Amino acid sequence: MDAGQRIERTLDIAVAYAEAPGAPPRLAEAIRYAVFPGGHRIRPRLCLAVAAACGDDDPQGAEAAAAAIELLHCASLVHDDLPCFDDAETRRKKPAVHVAFGEPLAVLTGDALIVLAFETLARGAAKRPQRLAALVGLVARAVGSPAGIVAGQAWESEAEVALSNYQQAKTGALFAAATVAGAAAAGATPLPWRLLGECLGEAYQVADDLRDVACRQEEIGKPAGRDATLGRPNAALLLGRGGALDRLKRLSAEAIEVIPTCPGADALRAEIAAQTRLFLPASLAHEFA
Amino acid sequence: MDAGQRIERTLDIAVAYAEAPGAPPRLAEAIRYAVFPGGHRIRPRLCLAVAAACGDDDPQGAEAAAAAIELLHCASLVHDDLPCFDDAETRRKKPAVHVAFGEPLAVLTGDALIVLAFETLARGAAKRPQRLAALVGLVARAVGSPAGIVAGQAWESEAEVALSNYQQAKTGALFAAATVAGAAAAGATPLPWRLLGECLGEAYQVADDLRDVACRQEEIGKPAGRDATLGRPNAALLLGRGGALDRLKRLSAEAIEVIPTCPGADALRAEIAAQTRLFLPASLAHEFA
Repeated sequence: MDAGQRIERTLDIAVAYAEAPGAPPRLAEAIRYAVFPGGHRIRPRLCLAVAAACGDDDPQGAEAAAAAIELLHCASLVHDDLPCFDDAETRRKKPAVHVAFGEPLAVLTGDALIVLAFETLARGAAKRPQRLAALVGLVARAVGSPAGIVAGQAWESEAEVALSNYQQAKTGALFAAATVAGAAAAGATPLPWRLLGECLGEAYQVADDLRDVACRQEEIGKPAGRDATLGRPNAALLLGRGGALDRLKRLSAEAIEVIPTCPGADALRAEIAAQTRLFLPASLAHEFA
Repeated sequence: MDAGQRIERTLDIAVAYAEAPGAPPRLAEAIRYAVFPGGHRIRPRLCLAVAAACGDDDPQGAEAAAAAIELLHCASLVHDDLPCFDDAETRRKKPAVHVAFGEPLAVLTGDALIVLAFETLARGAAKRPQRLAALVGLVARAVGSPAGIVAGQAWESEAEVALSNYQQAKTGALFAAATVAGAAAAGATPLPWRLLGECLGEAYQVADDLRDVACRQEEIGKPAGRDATLGRPNAALLLGRGGALDRLKRLSAEAIEVIPTCPGADALRAEIAAQTRLFLPASLAHEFA
């Protein structure tokens, strides 16, 4: 089974728990709608790739970590799209959860997905229970306060924004969680893996900024040009399209350089190179080659 | 240190993590505002009382479980008060979080508190890491879908409501989590403790319904008469004040009867009797005696 199939299967099993008999039917439907079909599943792929590079002695634990990170990513999309934040109409080429199910269920779907992420981590710890505390801690840090994606979103409510804090928390934190949790799930020391995740998170942010500026809504599945509309910092607006592409190339190369010594470093380098090519949509990817 | 002090200290340490350097200042402020000053801390007191009755061989783990449950309770209050749900202006005798900090920070405060709850559980597992997976599972089940407080709130978005599912999930689930997690944190088998939590959860719901119908806003710290306004089921409206008081007495007596055999059963019976007296505010408590 390839990484993509492992991720979809683990997410499907996790969501099935939330849909179990007794669940409010529309909440269950909204949870599945928020998770499937997914995007490129970049974060869980990264998590599994790092676990594989570290020896992958507990595939079930690695799959749980990967799925937990994707569930938290989905939760953040559902809440970020709410009227009080981005008020986005579309996401992943279909109506946003609050448009399809209403605002109350969108709030609750995000909440349920956060809870489901930690529940999934705990279920995956059957074989190596002694690794669970570190995994919960690493994943929680990437999502909560002071420096996770929730904190990143909260910087938009501050009068003065520490820009590096904002971007690191909003995008980098979950990428860093993908690498450190992948390592921890495989029994490796997580800390040396943080830099790889941070590099990739910054690269992804630059690519996302380029997409926002350079692509049409049909291609990226959500409204384009939102950063300019909402006055948010955007690398492609700050550096220009060429400058942002150069930065994306530099960060992608840097990511490959900072991979820690590990049994599967060569395969991981190839995987990271392939993954970073997916950061840009087709209309921009040829400029990245 | 008494139970109340242990709870406040553990909550304070947990919230301090979320306020660490780098946190968005207003988010940090809103998180503390949502947790302090608290109410009677009924759920975490119950959790510690059960852990004590079961031998309390890991006080740090029990405190973490108690704090996690209270953080999740606070998260649910913040989200339930949002304009898209109850649109409540006040909570715990001060402006609700969305009134004091705005809607975006209220959504994020709830999210951050959910994450912090699981982070707190993981930090508390240092001495008995093998208990963490069960604790995370028990607590998650009480909050998420299919039958936790998020599911309970989601029943309000369904055309047809299964009333017992709704009440069990909305109030009973977190009380049941308090008892089963208290037992699990002390190394006891959690399942026999569920019924006690469910009885107390139902008793608390009846008391809350009585408060909603019979008390003034100044006494309960939140708007009174909301259930009638919002068309929600309420035991005191269905059974009358006398009928609801009778039911509360019966449930409180039943709770004391269903306490499983354990080393500290006598002390726990006294504690439960004292706690259930706190369910009602002063103006009604004399009728309960």
